[in-house]
Amino acid sequence: MADFKAEIKVMLRRAILDPQGRAVETTLRRLGAHNVSDVRIGKHIELLFSGERAEVEAQLARLTEEVLSNPVLEEAHYTLTELPAPTDTEVDAGTDVRGVAG
Amino acid sequence: MADFKAEIKVMLRRAILDPQGRAVETTLRRLGAHNVSDVRIGKHIELLFSGERAEVEAQLARLTEEVLSNPVLEEAHYTLTELPAPTDTEVDAGTDVRGVAG
Repeated sequence: MADFKAEIKVMLRRAILDPQGRAVETTLRRLGAHNVSDVRIGKHIELLFSGERAEVEAQLARLTEEVLSNPVLEEAHYTLTELPAPTDTEVDAGTDVRGVAG
Repeated sequence: MADFKAEIKVMLRRAILDPQGRAVETTLRRLGAHNVSDVRIGKHIELLFSGERAEVEAQLARLTEEVLSNPVLEEAHYTLTELPAPTDTEVDAGTDVRGVAG
């Protein structure tokens, strides 16, 4: 049993118009940032899991694809990082797993 | 002159209740994921800049703090990566700059 932090980036697929990104791009240009292009806005989801590594990895992949993103319209990338045990001194554990759903 | 890709993660500050994260956490638990906790949902913003590195870095820091996030309620982290010139073969350029706004 360990604790894991998952970070999931969910973006609209390239082929899908991103109206929020488009609106922000227009605003940035109006503010004088004429060198900005291709603004896309998606979601960043963070959550903690406890459990055995293999089960958590499978669960994260499944929840990302089936609940946290819509694979028809969106692309999801995730990372899973094991958190140091509470008794340890603070360590940057790095990233253990990367994945793409959809 | 070069092209740069900026990625900005904007999350509500820890002290601020995240109702969207809370709702998703409740849903995940209802679906049987009882080992999930601390769900937080923020924004992931991607955009391209062209220009000289020093100017783009300063512009990204300023736009992140003044336009793309609300430093009172939100914490923003960004990375800036120089894109390979179009004539080069494709290279993962890595991350050149990291920053925090607010």
